[in-house]
Amino acid sequence: MKTRDRILETALRLFNEDGAAKVPINRIATELEMSPGNLHYHFPQKGQLVDRLLRRLEDEAEPVLAGPGAALIAVDDFWLFLHLVFEKMFMYRFLYRDVDYVMTEYPALAPRLRLLTSRGITTVDRLCHQLAAGGALRANDADISVLALQMMMAATCWFTFARMLPETQDTGPGRAAYQVLSLLSPYLADDARQYMDYLRRKYVSS
Amino acid sequence: MKTRDRILETALRLFNEDGAAKVPINRIATELEMSPGNLHYHFPQKGQLVDRLLRRLEDEAEPVLAGPGAALIAVDDFWLFLHLVFEKMFMYRFLYRDVDYVMTEYPALAPRLRLLTSRGITTVDRLCHQLAAGGALRANDADISVLALQMMMAATCWFTFARMLPETQDTGPGRAAYQVLSLLSPYLADDARQYMDYLRRKYVSS
Repeated sequence: MKTRDRILETALRLFNEDGAAKVPINRIATELEMSPGNLHYHFPQKGQLVDRLLRRLEDEAEPVLAGPGAALIAVDDFWLFLHLVFEKMFMYRFLYRDVDYVMTEYPALAPRLRLLTSRGITTVDRLCHQLAAGGALRANDADISVLALQMMMAATCWFTFARMLPETQDTGPGRAAYQVLSLLSPYLADDARQYMDYLRRKYVSS
Repeated sequence: MKTRDRILETALRLFNEDGAAKVPINRIATELEMSPGNLHYHFPQKGQLVDRLLRRLEDEAEPVLAGPGAALIAVDDFWLFLHLVFEKMFMYRFLYRDVDYVMTEYPALAPRLRLLTSRGITTVDRLCHQLAAGGALRANDADISVLALQMMMAATCWFTFARMLPETQDTGPGRAAYQVLSLLSPYLADDARQYMDYLRRKYVSS
């Protein structure tokens, strides 16, 4: 692996573990048994590491945000889509857990995070329409536009909110995807709702 | 105003503006034109300020979490309740925007924040049942238990998520309360839904 990539991998791991605010750039050098000068040569400032990691998320999010290829989808396609979204978000979770720090400290990144969010809302909106076209969802345009915002909000905030829940609760990507998908429940046709019941039994400890 | 209270007021304002992580205790002293020694006499560490502010939120949340007195409530009572909740959360928003920092830096406060959250879920659950008893909500126990978690999640995360939205959107307490209340929409009886339409016209710019 190239030095640059090794640095990025280690920075990502430490940022995810402790939050970008709490990880000084020299700790990344120490962790890699690298001189601060060498690290500085690749990334003079922490902001450049965060910028690069956000760029990677943007690139990796691209195919996920394209959504399933089919024009008509079922509720399990939607669930799979959400699962993939959460895997990506989980991989770069420091950006979402630490959003306040990231946006304040690196204002240039704020519009890019906002863009990712609004692209997410657009994709979810489109998927809801595809679900409706496939007969699984009974909702009009206004319902769907409220739903898409709610779902993206739940997705964005899950990693923060999960910390506020009792520690006994499972908070992994499957549970997260169920939580977001359950916003659709009241609009689902009967057989799609049975799929939700199956997911609930699988992911929610009561 | 007592010195102690003046310190708390200033700390709260600065924490809300810039995040607790970014405000060193000496800046609070400077802002108050007070010697660091005098501030230190009242609050030896920043953690004690955060602890005191959380205690104040806990005390002030008490009557709000008690909810409306009536056994049967209508959707506008629920809206008022959410509005009051958001006013409180907004007043102490650094705790919610900075939840990652607060819980990591002051682990002793984490269970208290979790308790506030689970009390919020319990209250929302109870209010949904009261709304159902009043005929405005058509949902069973399982629906309500999912709803209560969704609503509390949306409330807790609003201040973080609002930063991810395009800056043209109104993100104040009224908009926030509408966003959370709209989770009830699919379960509302017709006249209650008309009230939601009224709120949407008032708070959501399209």
